[in-house]
Amino acid sequence: MALPQKVKIVDVGPRDGLQNEKTIVSTEVKVELIQRLAEAGLPVVEATSFVSPKWVPQMADNVEVMAKIQRKSGVRYPVLTPNLKGFEAALAAGADEVAVFGAASESFSQKNINCSIKESLERFAPVMEAAKANNVRVRGYVSCVLGCPYEGEIAVGKVAEVAKTLLDMGCYEISLGDTIGVGTPGKARTMLETVAKQVPMTQLAVHFHDTYGQALANIFACLQAGVAVVDSSIAGLGGCPYAKGASGNVATEDVVYMLNGLGIETGIDIERLLDVSAFISAQLGREPVSKAAKAMLAKRR
Amino acid sequence: MALPQKVKIVDVGPRDGLQNEKTIVSTEVKVELIQRLAEAGLPVVEATSFVSPKWVPQMADNVEVMAKIQRKSGVRYPVLTPNLKGFEAALAAGADEVAVFGAASESFSQKNINCSIKESLERFAPVMEAAKANNVRVRGYVSCVLGCPYEGEIAVGKVAEVAKTLLDMGCYEISLGDTIGVGTPGKARTMLETVAKQVPMTQLAVHFHDTYGQALANIFACLQAGVAVVDSSIAGLGGCPYAKGASGNVATEDVVYMLNGLGIETGIDIERLLDVSAFISAQLGREPVSKAAKAMLAKRR
Repeated sequence: MALPQKVKIVDVGPRDGLQNEKTIVSTEVKVELIQRLAEAGLPVVEATSFVSPKWVPQMADNVEVMAKIQRKSGVRYPVLTPNLKGFEAALAAGADEVAVFGAASESFSQKNINCSIKESLERFAPVMEAAKANNVRVRGYVSCVLGCPYEGEIAVGKVAEVAKTLLDMGCYEISLGDTIGVGTPGKARTMLETVAKQVPMTQLAVHFHDTYGQALANIFACLQAGVAVVDSSIAGLGGCPYAKGASGNVATEDVVYMLNGLGIETGIDIERLLDVSAFISAQLGREPVSKAAKAMLAKRR
Repeated sequence: MALPQKVKIVDVGPRDGLQNEKTIVSTEVKVELIQRLAEAGLPVVEATSFVSPKWVPQMADNVEVMAKIQRKSGVRYPVLTPNLKGFEAALAAGADEVAVFGAASESFSQKNINCSIKESLERFAPVMEAAKANNVRVRGYVSCVLGCPYEGEIAVGKVAEVAKTLLDMGCYEISLGDTIGVGTPGKARTMLETVAKQVPMTQLAVHFHDTYGQALANIFACLQAGVAVVDSSIAGLGGCPYAKGASGNVATEDVVYMLNGLGIETGIDIERLLDVSAFISAQLGREPVSKAAKAMLAKRR
């Protein structure tokens, strides 16, 4: 087993997570969450999105969030920007890293954003140009890499093609997302290795949902294949919009617990991470979705 | 990745699971659970235990359970027997396979059964003799293989030693249990491979608890090392006696979902398994602990 020595964890909780929670938290809570994640050692915290509040009312306070967070040196705070209007708003709000979102499933793209994959990628072209001109790094997401809620299995070649297009357009890192959590370790590794023939492994990230409980096994299989960037969400924030009551994003605490056990460095202080987990879970009025957090918080009591 | 083509799943839900649930279910429900697991394709269903009802009141109906289950051809129904008295009662009740329990942790053995590991193994000698004389197969469990609630980390050499002793005493299979669920994939694999130097891999099983969310990743790592027998518990029955509110046994549905995805045969019909999961969860008045079951049952609705 040739595992990476270090793994970079990207916490998507404040954006991808909170956006999919029913309970709306205040701007102050969001700011505290972002800051405490950075203080716990997270190197990247996805802060908010610049999408129309008509579509995503949970992120309507994006400008305020960006203005209020006290940035920690060395930490990055990417924001989601689906189009040039969003990018310009993000830039004005002080973002120095943005993220764009493409799907590997044609049906998902059509149902979700009402255009083809090709058209969706073309829409990013002005964002990529503006980002380059303003020295803003762009992270690319590919969704539905191991399955689509509308069309089922997705060809790995299609995932590789979309990832390569995002790379060629200028994304510095491509995050491969199992949006509906259906993947299992063998398929996850095969998918990653297929994409890695088109995009260097050092520029790839994996983004698993724990809907079927497979996320950690999938991450482990992908670490064995050499990936060293993992997306996760503090306290498992997010849920799954495709199966009510089911889990969404893999919890950061579970990932960090596993990486610690594997002797892989993350720079994250798990005790402080647990504090953040307890904090945001209390704000949402529930327990963390993370099993590791539940077990460790129970031991504290 | 050289994964096994077939995996035998041992469902410990009716015994190890229900024994650790607060809600007591009726004998009829136990019998139905055991039969439905067999009908769903489980090749081994741990049925009950022959322990003093003073210690384990949940299994006081052991004779009745054994008398009432309609056995399916080819399926085995082991029962736990801690001593000769229990063995004789099990034999009289019609058991043709029993299980004995040893710890890899000296403190756990002392606190749990008030004797040393060596003494506990010596107590099994008459059980092993009687089993041999009566043509009854004996399965051996080793607990605390990746950590102990009292003394923390456990030396892998000690695990191998206890497993080898159980093998030499006549156990046909040794199940290695991460009783408190603290293990992570690298350590799990190292432990298994160390034991496999003393006990043939074909006679080893892994028994993971999902307390820290690591069970499937650990199982995947152990499959890569060649293990082909996995213990699990329908609907994640059991909970964790060492951390209130935390998960215990890994859920059978999560394991089967992963194995199906890996293309590994189990002989289990996942749809029928889901029916059993929904049945026993309803009896306990809660949702299955299994994420795969939750997601698949949500999709059915």
